[in-house]
Amino acid sequence: MKHIESVKNNKVKQWKKLQKKKEREQSGTFIIEGFHLVEEALKVDNLVEEVIISEDRSIPSEWDLNHVELIYAVPNVLKEISETETPQGVAAICRIPEQNERKIQPNQKILLLDNVQDPGNVGTMIRTADAAGMDMVILGEGCADLYSSKVIRSTQGSIFHLPIARGDLKSYIKECKELQTPVYGTSLQNGVPYQEVQPSESFALILGNEGKGMAQEHLEMTDQNLYIPIHGQSESLNVGVAAGILMYFLRG
Amino acid sequence: MKHIESVKNNKVKQWKKLQKKKEREQSGTFIIEGFHLVEEALKVDNLVEEVIISEDRSIPSEWDLNHVELIYAVPNVLKEISETETPQGVAAICRIPEQNERKIQPNQKILLLDNVQDPGNVGTMIRTADAAGMDMVILGEGCADLYSSKVIRSTQGSIFHLPIARGDLKSYIKECKELQTPVYGTSLQNGVPYQEVQPSESFALILGNEGKGMAQEHLEMTDQNLYIPIHGQSESLNVGVAAGILMYFLRG
Repeated sequence: MKHIESVKNNKVKQWKKLQKKKEREQSGTFIIEGFHLVEEALKVDNLVEEVIISEDRSIPSEWDLNHVELIYAVPNVLKEISETETPQGVAAICRIPEQNERKIQPNQKILLLDNVQDPGNVGTMIRTADAAGMDMVILGEGCADLYSSKVIRSTQGSIFHLPIARGDLKSYIKECKELQTPVYGTSLQNGVPYQEVQPSESFALILGNEGKGMAQEHLEMTDQNLYIPIHGQSESLNVGVAAGILMYFLRG
Repeated sequence: MKHIESVKNNKVKQWKKLQKKKEREQSGTFIIEGFHLVEEALKVDNLVEEVIISEDRSIPSEWDLNHVELIYAVPNVLKEISETETPQGVAAICRIPEQNERKIQPNQKILLLDNVQDPGNVGTMIRTADAAGMDMVILGEGCADLYSSKVIRSTQGSIFHLPIARGDLKSYIKECKELQTPVYGTSLQNGVPYQEVQPSESFALILGNEGKGMAQEHLEMTDQNLYIPIHGQSESLNVGVAAGILMYFLRG
């Protein structure tokens, strides 16, 4: 069993680099931390490559570490590679899954994000999509990087629960329409109050950027654009909250 | 007109201290920053005492600065008192309103927060309550401090749009019940799916702590406890998202 004594170990330097998007893309791996996230990741086949645990912590007995390299390290190593203020003493290196054309199927519920920049918002929406029983999440261009530490933490493990694709929203919108899945955009300016559409088993819902909303070119491709009525004096809702209200309404 | 040249000016030191809760309580004031928030604050009578603006910025012509002291300062002063990474060059010192027993009226919609600790969650829920047309928000014990910079920023100005009380939730729950306002708690363990209750003009809704949920003693005082069904594999929803789904559903 490997044991790492120093933060100057080359492995530690490599792990720490995974805080940067470029390094994640080059290596095809990302890092997660905390007992809950590592546990959720271990439930997925062929995802986790290495588990790094502080020597003053123990591996929960129910974890299945077959095909996973287990590495013990001094507590400082875990502090070094952590991006949280109070590291739990456990981390894991995971493979970035292939973007193997996750195809949309008929009768699915899909959440699409158009240029949602805040990592906390992206993560929270993935978590809510999981809870609402959505079948897939699609991150369009301009979205926060799926494998950044803040996004992963905000998903609370849901990143491992449902397929998440990344790519050009236009082609996904077209796919939905070909499958007769109604596509709803969101816009403060135009559209109908969301309560006017019928909940259904199958729909695609698009949420947009925190400040600018959805791209006009995407708004023009939808079947219907929705808004959430504002009854008080606030100008808008947080995009993650809006996503939750709409997903739970539309699924009925 | 006052002009402050140095970050060592005593006023600057005092303003900076307002980042701490204790100092806010002792002085009875709090600090806000950014053009949008200061503009929203200026619309409220007797709230803003001082506006501090960087000498390289201009006051928007529509701002009414009667009864407000306007202070120009070098840009570094605004940087010094700011809690954001990219300060906009404007801030204001506001009076903390008297806790003059904000009484609940009959036929109101009230949001109560029970030990919600994350400032972003508290702020977002105030923003959503404003949007959903709630009449009042009540922060129970253990909640993030209303006048902290992060809470204020997350409200996006809604902190100035509706009455927000702080105090013991028990007395507020009792008041609601005396006024025949139905009180709904939230709990993952017990209760009914939220869709089983009827939307109505008047209700009180309680959301709880991010990890532990609502206090048992409060759950026992409600008329009904609700939960949001989880259809996927996530364990729970973000509390701010849950609040949005429930407020928009219950108001109908």
